[in-house]
Amino acid sequence: MTKQASAANIRHWLETINTYNSTPGAGTTRVLFTKPEMEARQYVKDEMRKLGLTVKEDGIGNIFGILPGRQPELPPVWTGSHIDTVLHAGMFDGMSGVVAGLEAVRLIRSAGATFERSIVVVVYTSEEPTRFELGCLGSRALAGKLNLADAYKLVDKGGRNLPEVLTELDYDLARFAEIPIKPGAVYGAVELHIDQTGVLERAGKTVGVVKTICAPTNFDIEVTGCQSHAGGTSMEERRDAYAASCEIGLALEKLARESDSEYTTATIGRVEVCPNAVNVIPGKVKFSIDIRDCDFDAKERLVARLKAVIAGIEAKRGVQVSLTEYNNDQPMHCNPAMMAKIEAACRQRGISYQKVISGAFHDSMLVGEFAPVAMIFVPSKNGISHSAEEWTDFADIAAGTDVLMDTLLAMANEV
Amino acid sequence: MTKQASAANIRHWLETINTYNSTPGAGTTRVLFTKPEMEARQYVKDEMRKLGLTVKEDGIGNIFGILPGRQPELPPVWTGSHIDTVLHAGMFDGMSGVVAGLEAVRLIRSAGATFERSIVVVVYTSEEPTRFELGCLGSRALAGKLNLADAYKLVDKGGRNLPEVLTELDYDLARFAEIPIKPGAVYGAVELHIDQTGVLERAGKTVGVVKTICAPTNFDIEVTGCQSHAGGTSMEERRDAYAASCEIGLALEKLARESDSEYTTATIGRVEVCPNAVNVIPGKVKFSIDIRDCDFDAKERLVARLKAVIAGIEAKRGVQVSLTEYNNDQPMHCNPAMMAKIEAACRQRGISYQKVISGAFHDSMLVGEFAPVAMIFVPSKNGISHSAEEWTDFADIAAGTDVLMDTLLAMANEV
Repeated sequence: MTKQASAANIRHWLETINTYNSTPGAGTTRVLFTKPEMEARQYVKDEMRKLGLTVKEDGIGNIFGILPGRQPELPPVWTGSHIDTVLHAGMFDGMSGVVAGLEAVRLIRSAGATFERSIVVVVYTSEEPTRFELGCLGSRALAGKLNLADAYKLVDKGGRNLPEVLTELDYDLARFAEIPIKPGAVYGAVELHIDQTGVLERAGKTVGVVKTICAPTNFDIEVTGCQSHAGGTSMEERRDAYAASCEIGLALEKLARESDSEYTTATIGRVEVCPNAVNVIPGKVKFSIDIRDCDFDAKERLVARLKAVIAGIEAKRGVQVSLTEYNNDQPMHCNPAMMAKIEAACRQRGISYQKVISGAFHDSMLVGEFAPVAMIFVPSKNGISHSAEEWTDFADIAAGTDVLMDTLLAMANEV
Repeated sequence: MTKQASAANIRHWLETINTYNSTPGAGTTRVLFTKPEMEARQYVKDEMRKLGLTVKEDGIGNIFGILPGRQPELPPVWTGSHIDTVLHAGMFDGMSGVVAGLEAVRLIRSAGATFERSIVVVVYTSEEPTRFELGCLGSRALAGKLNLADAYKLVDKGGRNLPEVLTELDYDLARFAEIPIKPGAVYGAVELHIDQTGVLERAGKTVGVVKTICAPTNFDIEVTGCQSHAGGTSMEERRDAYAASCEIGLALEKLARESDSEYTTATIGRVEVCPNAVNVIPGKVKFSIDIRDCDFDAKERLVARLKAVIAGIEAKRGVQVSLTEYNNDQPMHCNPAMMAKIEAACRQRGISYQKVISGAFHDSMLVGEFAPVAMIFVPSKNGISHSAEEWTDFADIAAGTDVLMDTLLAMANEV
């Protein structure tokens, strides 16, 4: 197809979704099932209907906008991403993939292109772990890796669990069991997303063809020392939970830097110090550890080394450290045939590309559990995301959308 | 005098004051000018009146319970401490000194002892920096080091400044200018307090005669890196404000440990990570630094070294670090003649003692700006304070009170 995506359309949709924001003036914050997120959901569903899609929603709020193919009984082709954000985020992460899906089906319809398999634009529920500290809730449920019993264990900072929140919003918990998708029931899923490393921008490429999606391992860490007086307790006598936490933090950073894997990151993003007063030696510090790797075994080795370091810190400082692993995902390798279709579309349209690794995880990591997946990355400025400074040129999203459209059509016509 | 303080009285007063607590079951929290603190103030004033003291209160809420001497025109002798606490604190820090003062004047009255100078039991306002992040507000104002203009700059977490809070509680701001005490107007001030180092317990001594009160220097630190995606931003590319903060934390700890001063501590007690989400590299971290030393010059040297280390961390990690010094107190040396009186009282009563350094600061540090000061320490279990685990035997406070009473009487009869 020779049609080209409209950067103006893409911009309009992104900017409109971006108005649903609980922190205007301080980046974009759209947390799962809050008012702005519910309004953004409604907006996207309305736009899907305007484009002629049939809209369905499952028991965890995954939204499906369906453009029926000539053989709608065949496993469909999916595309999509998410519309929730972290705190003080940007307007591109997630939303670009949803909007690219909308623009792709708009073009396909307006071109009158024929295709056999249905094409489905999906909005996955809560890719970000902002509310329940676990990411990819919607795609995790689709993959059969989040059942209702698991959902009850997800509790937000207000003490409310996921089924409670779903029920309040009139989602039917009885439908939770229907969410998982059987392997083979989806022909393939392609997700467009912004690059979050800066690698495409530095290489001057418009498209990244993802080889592997790194997967996170997450720990809650609790360091217990002895709360005491900042002046009264000498340096020798103190058992400072925060100083111990600093040592763990630097050790973790060193281990990630020295990893022999192709791509490893380790991040402490959330820290809570107790009692958190100027003149009190912290008796307790709780913090998060997020480790990502494209190689599952390398990740396991890093965790083993970290545990050894922590044991040493416990002994040396007289503190206790508890590690609770609450997530340990497998990296996902993209489908070579689908990658080849993306590359072919790039070549045909004269769009520059290169293969990349995704340091960030995406819904495709979980969708890959029941369907072949591929991802199309578009450049982001300085590789910054999860920040108000996040930026991707609309023209680059449009170029990625062209490649997405070609890939979807090619797949939808494979029978 | 041969009268002995009653451990039962001391226990009763301490336990009653301890009922005024906003965190029952999780240590004692009595923050300046909150409901429990106001109720505790009222209780202490009522008890003072029951003991026959004349109660006065100044423009910042310092409470004075006056037992007139035969020559009330002479500069009086003061004793006292504070009744506010840090978060989740114990029941002894501060309160012991107030209660010891009450018990001492009760004994002096009941013995019918004669004395020339008036004896005043003082409750100093907000020795703890819990609410306004600056300690010794009451004694600081008495020392002429906190005027109304300074007070307007003290803002609590709710955004309210000190004069605003005082006005709401019917304190007259017009009286603020009357608070400072002229040097010479107070003959001397003796404060009983719990030891906060464990040194007395380990040495098996009942009383510590304080030589020097260490003084704090306080900084607000703000580390600015680049907020970004935990997975998407490689270890090489990230500018992680929290990792930089960890490095500053460990460097500070090392400098304090290696200090050549007799007593140095350095503490990071308050930490705020932004945006504080599991999967976001912190773009900003704010934290407190509290440095104590019995040697002002040694403290200055440590700060200079810390600044050099921070400059290196800024350059290496591509982060910006701002240091705002908001307090830099002078260590206070206790008055030798008053120390000698305390030692004489110990010997006469057969109470074991040793000279000690106070790592913690106390109101006496500021009172020392306008009057000779001395401090009587009593042992605390494992040296733990600012914690629910804080404990001092009532019998030890009673022994310290005996020494306090003798010292007060000796001073009150020096004309």
